[in-house]
Amino acid sequence: MLNMNEGSRQDTVALMAELGRKARAAARPLAIATAERKHAALVAMAEAITRREQEILDANALDMANGEEAGLSSAMLDRLKLNAQRIRAIADGIRAIAELRDPVGDVIAEWDRPNGLHIERVRTPLGVVGVIYESRPNVTADAGALCLKAGNAVILRGGSDSLNSSGAIHACLVEGLKAAGLPQDAIQLVPLSDRAAVGEMLKGLGGSIDVIIPRGGRSLVERVQSEARVPVFAHLEGICHLYVDRSANLDMAVKLAVNAKMRRTGICGAAETLLVDRAVASTHLVPVLEALRDAGCTIRADDEVRAAFPDAEPATEQDWRTEYLDAIISAKLVDGVAGAIGHIETYSSHHTEAIVAEDAAAVEKFFNEIDSAILLHNASTQFADGGEFGMGAEIGIATGKMHARGPVGVEQLTSFKYRVRGSGQVRS
Amino acid sequence: MLNMNEGSRQDTVALMAELGRKARAAARPLAIATAERKHAALVAMAEAITRREQEILDANALDMANGEEAGLSSAMLDRLKLNAQRIRAIADGIRAIAELRDPVGDVIAEWDRPNGLHIERVRTPLGVVGVIYESRPNVTADAGALCLKAGNAVILRGGSDSLNSSGAIHACLVEGLKAAGLPQDAIQLVPLSDRAAVGEMLKGLGGSIDVIIPRGGRSLVERVQSEARVPVFAHLEGICHLYVDRSANLDMAVKLAVNAKMRRTGICGAAETLLVDRAVASTHLVPVLEALRDAGCTIRADDEVRAAFPDAEPATEQDWRTEYLDAIISAKLVDGVAGAIGHIETYSSHHTEAIVAEDAAAVEKFFNEIDSAILLHNASTQFADGGEFGMGAEIGIATGKMHARGPVGVEQLTSFKYRVRGSGQVRS
Repeated sequence: MLNMNEGSRQDTVALMAELGRKARAAARPLAIATAERKHAALVAMAEAITRREQEILDANALDMANGEEAGLSSAMLDRLKLNAQRIRAIADGIRAIAELRDPVGDVIAEWDRPNGLHIERVRTPLGVVGVIYESRPNVTADAGALCLKAGNAVILRGGSDSLNSSGAIHACLVEGLKAAGLPQDAIQLVPLSDRAAVGEMLKGLGGSIDVIIPRGGRSLVERVQSEARVPVFAHLEGICHLYVDRSANLDMAVKLAVNAKMRRTGICGAAETLLVDRAVASTHLVPVLEALRDAGCTIRADDEVRAAFPDAEPATEQDWRTEYLDAIISAKLVDGVAGAIGHIETYSSHHTEAIVAEDAAAVEKFFNEIDSAILLHNASTQFADGGEFGMGAEIGIATGKMHARGPVGVEQLTSFKYRVRGSGQVRS
Repeated sequence: MLNMNEGSRQDTVALMAELGRKARAAARPLAIATAERKHAALVAMAEAITRREQEILDANALDMANGEEAGLSSAMLDRLKLNAQRIRAIADGIRAIAELRDPVGDVIAEWDRPNGLHIERVRTPLGVVGVIYESRPNVTADAGALCLKAGNAVILRGGSDSLNSSGAIHACLVEGLKAAGLPQDAIQLVPLSDRAAVGEMLKGLGGSIDVIIPRGGRSLVERVQSEARVPVFAHLEGICHLYVDRSANLDMAVKLAVNAKMRRTGICGAAETLLVDRAVASTHLVPVLEALRDAGCTIRADDEVRAAFPDAEPATEQDWRTEYLDAIISAKLVDGVAGAIGHIETYSSHHTEAIVAEDAAAVEKFFNEIDSAILLHNASTQFADGGEFGMGAEIGIATGKMHARGPVGVEQLTSFKYRVRGSGQVRS
C-alpha cells in the first residue's frame, strides 16, 4: 500500500485514473453476472472475514495506535475500533446482503401497446459507484457488498484513520470475488489518504464513475456538493423534528420523544427539535421535557418554553439549524400543525419528521404538506433506517430528491432500461 | 421584455436570482395543489393558446424576420415557424397533458412491518425544474405544461431566435395559471437571451433549481455537463443501431431498416448505423442496402461492405461515432450478436438499439448484455418516444442512468417520499 507522503499530485491523478479504468472494465462482466455467482462471492467474503479475523485485528491495532498518537477523540477512536464481536457483525452483515433478492433483471413494470408492442421496464446496475466515507471500517464491507449485490463496481475511499483496517477487510472482499470467478477490480479501495484522491473521484475519473455516495460529516458533504462533477446521492445531516399535536396521547408523546432523542443520539434519525402545540402547552409540554431531562437530555428552548420549564437553557436561532448528534434537544411551542409545518419547512434538512396525534386531519396535513424523505405518525424518528424499513442493509439515508430518497438499499443502487418486443412494427 | 444588449452581467445575475426565488416560492403551493386545479389551469392554457392565435403568429413573424435577417438556415427557420396548424397542435398537446393521470400522491408501493408499522412510498413533485432549449417554440408549451402536471415550478430558457414566439406562448400559460388560481410564478420564461443567463441556471440560482433538463444539440449538452452544479437529466445524442441477425426475416429487416432510418431522419431515435451478421452477408446485406439507397439514403461503409455494395461511400472511424440526423447511414458486417454487442458497447450513445432476429437466444443476449435506455426486438428504433410508449407527452429521452432513463414523461418529473403510520412504536 502506498504511503500518502510519497504520492505526488501527478502520481495521485495517474493512480486514480487507473483505478477508474479498472472499475469501468469490471463493471460490464459484473452487470451480466448471475445472481448465483454474486451470492457465492458474498458468502465467500463473509467466510474470509471470519477466517482472517486476526489479520483484521492486527491492522486495526495499527490504526488505533496511529489514531491515539494523532490524538483522535475517544468518540472517533471508538468508531475506529474493531473487536471479535464487531468483526462477527461485519461478516453477518455481508451474509444478510447475500440472502437479499437480487434486483438485477427484475421487471418493474410491463404493458402492451395497441400496435402490439410489449414494453418492459427492467432493473439494471448503475455501473460504477464511488463511495467516500470516514472512519468506520465496517462501511468498507457494507458498501462493497451492497454495490456488488446490485451488480455495480465500486471504488471505496475510506478515511485515512482506518486505512489499515479497511485494507484488511478489502482483502477479504477481493478473496470472495476471486473465489466466485468475478473480476477482482469490481471492488477497489483507494490506497491513498490525501485529499487529492477525493478530488479526482469527485471529477468522475474521466467518466469512470456514474454516481458518488458521500458518507460523512458536514465538511465532506459540503466539499462534495461544491466539487462533484458527477451525480451524487446527497446525504445531508438529519435535523429531525418530533411534533406533539393538541390531539396527542400524552403517554405516547412522552415515550416517543424519549426514544426519538435518546435511544441513540449519534444517528441521523435522532430527533433534534421538539415542537409542541401551544394548545396543549399546559398539559403536554412539561411532562415531555421532564421525561427527556430525566433521561439525561439537555433542553434548549425559547423564552416561552423556559417560562414553563426553567431547567431549559436559552436557545439561539442557530439551535433550530443544529444537528446535535448528542443528548441535547431544542424545544419550541408552535400554533398547531400549521405552525409545526412552517417551522419544519424553514429549518428541516428534509430527512425525517414525526407527528404524535390522534386527529386524522392533522396527520394528513402533516403528511401532505411536508416535503421530507420520511414522515412518521405515532412512531419514533429512529425508525428512519433501511433495516427497519425491511430493505435489508442500507448505505445511508439520501436527502436529495433525485433517483434515491430515504434509505439507500440494494434497489436504490440500480437503474433500469426498457425492453420492447415486436413482430415487425414500423412507425407510421 | 428586456433587450439582451441592455442587460449587463450584474443585471443578469440579479434578474436570474429573482426568477429563482419566485419559482421556489411558487413550488410549495403548487406541490399541494389539487389535481382538479392543475387540470383546470392546463385547460385554460390551451384555450388561451387558441384564442390568442393571432398574437402568437405576429410574435412568430417578428422572430422569422429576425431569423432571416440573421441568416438562419432554412431547416432552423422551419423549426422556428408557426402557423395555424402548428398552434392548434400546441393547444391539443396541452389538452392531452391535462387529461393524463395526476401522478402526485400516487402510492407507488406499500408494505407492513412485523412491528405493525405501515410504510407507503408516495409520489411527490421534484420542486423547481430548469429547462434549457433551442429554437422550437412549442417546447415552451410542452415543458411548461408537463412540469405543471407533475406539480413542479419551471424556469424556461428558450433559444434567442424564438424569444418573441415563446413570450407569446408563455403569456397564455400564465393566463391559465391565473384562471385556476395558481401562482403565476410557477411557469417563468427567462426574458434574456445572453449566455450568462444559462450559466446562472446551471449554477442552480442559489439552490432554487432542483434539476436541469437540457434540450438541444451537442454544444448545449457539453456546456451543461461541464458547468452544471445541479442534477441534470442528460439528453445525449442518439447514435442508434439496427442489427440484422443471421436468424432475421429478410423482408422484415428491409422494412425495419428503411423505417428506422428514413421515416424521419432528424429525430434522436433514427437509426445511424446498420450492423449485419456476417453469416448472412451474402443474402441480407445487399437487399437491405438497396432498399435504403432506393429510399434516398446515402450509405457509408467499410471496405468489406463496399466490395458487396459498390454504391456505398467509404466510412471512416468517425462515422461510427456520428449522429447524422440526415439521410445517411453507416454500415458494417459483424460476427453475430456478440460482434454487434461489441460494436454497440464501443460506439453507442446508449439511447436506443434494435435487433431483427427470429432466434430467441440471440434476442435475449442482445437484451441482457447491452446497457442502452431502450432495446427493441423486431421493431423500428423510431418507436423511442414517450407517446409511442403510452406515457403521453415527453420532455425528451434521457440517456443518463440516474432517476430518469428513456422517455421523460410526467412520472419521470416526480420524486417520492415515505409515509409511515404507527401506533406508538419505539425502536428497541
